[in-house]
Amino acid sequence: MHNESLIYGLDIFGTMIFAFSGVLVAARKHMDFIGVLVLSAAVAVGGGTVRDLLLRVDQIFWIADNTYIYVILASCVVGVLWLKWINYLDRRLLPVCDAIGLAVFLGIGFNKALMYNTSYTVAIILGTMTGVGGGIIRDILSGEVPTVLKKEFYASTCLVGGLVIVGLEYTSLTRDTSLIIGMMVTLIARLCAIKYSLRLPEIKL
Amino acid sequence: MHNESLIYGLDIFGTMIFAFSGVLVAARKHMDFIGVLVLSAAVAVGGGTVRDLLLRVDQIFWIADNTYIYVILASCVVGVLWLKWINYLDRRLLPVCDAIGLAVFLGIGFNKALMYNTSYTVAIILGTMTGVGGGIIRDILSGEVPTVLKKEFYASTCLVGGLVIVGLEYTSLTRDTSLIIGMMVTLIARLCAIKYSLRLPEIKL
Amino acid sequence: MHNESLIYGLDIFGTMIFAFSGVLVAARKHMDFIGVLVLSAAVAVGGGTVRDLLLRVDQIFWIADNTYIYVILASCVVGVLWLKWINYLDRRLLPVCDAIGLAVFLGIGFNKALMYNTSYTVAIILGTMTGVGGGIIRDILSGEVPTVLKKEFYASTCLVGGLVIVGLEYTSLTRDTSLIIGMMVTLIARLCAIKYSLRLPEIKL
Repeated sequence: MHNESLIYGLDIFGTMIFAFSGVLVAARKHMDFIGVLVLSAAVAVGGGTVRDLLLRVDQIFWIADNTYIYVILASCVVGVLWLKWINYLDRRLLPVCDAIGLAVFLGIGFNKALMYNTSYTVAIILGTMTGVGGGIIRDILSGEVPTVLKKEFYASTCLVGGLVIVGLEYTSLTRDTSLIIGMMVTLIARLCAIKYSLRLPEIKL
Repeated sequence: MHNESLIYGLDIFGTMIFAFSGVLVAARKHMDFIGVLVLSAAVAVGGGTVRDLLLRVDQIFWIADNTYIYVILASCVVGVLWLKWINYLDRRLLPVCDAIGLAVFLGIGFNKALMYNTSYTVAIILGTMTGVGGGIIRDILSGEVPTVLKKEFYASTCLVGGLVIVGLEYTSLTRDTSLIIGMMVTLIARLCAIKYSLRLPEIKL
Repeated sequence: MHNESLIYGLDIFGTMIFAFSGVLVAARKHMDFIGVLVLSAAVAVGGGTVRDLLLRVDQIFWIADNTYIYVILASCVVGVLWLKWINYLDRRLLPVCDAIGLAVFLGIGFNKALMYNTSYTVAIILGTMTGVGGGIIRDILSGEVPTVLKKEFYASTCLVGGLVIVGLEYTSLTRDTSLIIGMMVTLIARLCAIKYSLRLPEIKL
């Protein structure tokens, strides 16, 4: 019970943050309001939609519960008004929003996969997909090589967070606590990766 | 009954028109016949396939009814022969075909979504996806930034058409009539947008 | 019975080969280990995942059987170590691996489609998608125009192989034998296409 409302709250929060990050990317590309909406929606529900399709759920989450759609719409309106009226934006806002969304959606995706009785390996993969999927779709739509394949530690922070959750499953901690800790690990790892430009060595041919 | 055959006829018509628009794009890119086939199929059934996946239908429409496949094949053969022998093409043909497909598929997608008991909000979204989805896949496959994010009123004409259909649902008109009116609104809006280069203002960062 | 283990063995073999081809592409693009993993997985299970989604199977194959995931992981580790230590690679290795994967997955996809009672037409399409799908996703992710739309005979070799299998269905050969022959046809056709740069004529506008 408690679990459900906590997870739901985090999910809505992550959707809001990711939708807002979509507004920032769209504005940087001089798109119009529809472009803003499409990109925001892609980032906010893209990863979860892919996860739901792969898990063969009965109803895709945003079709079953339209709250997600209205949250995205509201984020876009607020985001656009902010850009227009306040007209100030810290340059670090986009990567930080992206990191928060990444961490939250890793946990959400991991949890949903386990609810469908997948193995831990699949739960880590689907959690990571939920986290990075939206950003990949956003990048493809806006004609860029997906961040996941280029930047500092990105998908890898999800893998690490997922491994932490799996490890904590074998302790006496409740899953809620494990999930929160895993999300924190991913968030901190990603923020450190941005701050210190940490990256894996390149593989060369 | 009447509804079904009208909708089916429109669906096949839209498939034909969209497949032909795929031939034109592929020819412009100097692709071979397989490229023509792949692009045409992507435009013609891409949007509907995404809609069917999201709606969790029992069988994807073109797997359940192979007519769509043969219509695409025929459109490609006719299109390529035309380009080869008649060798004349009005430059306005591509945008007009695209506008017709957009309008028809909005209605088809909207109708199918409601048949699966989605909310009106989701029906508008899935109708729009059916209309613009094929074009997005075509653009991604041929390495361009999707029209939906760049051009004059495009996805927005679907949203407007969808809102009109929802409005008419509250009148005494049959759904057939509402759908046709909504499609006409989208078609006219899109043609006007092309003719007068109407576009939304850009959002800037 | 025999059929099942033969098909399974070929599927795992194709996954290994395709995953390895993903390592080569990722290394050519100077990606890090995560990029290698993502690209390899995209090539190795991308096409089959799309096929499974379209066929509406109960469980996506790699979620039902995690062996595929571990095969990809192992291929990546071995591939990266090879690049690092042996540091020698015949330039023809990538296209040959790609051709083998293409041929094997055509047969696997064709067979699975028929198991879900599709028509032969749909089986050829889904077989072809299983063969070329992974490569398309790989190309989109790494920011290139998909090979399928550009190069010498590629998807067409799958279509030919598929037509051969359909033809052999009307003989007294077992499906196993038909599949193997169809795969060989595709493999040989593709290797010849590479060697002699065979291509279809371009369609021009």
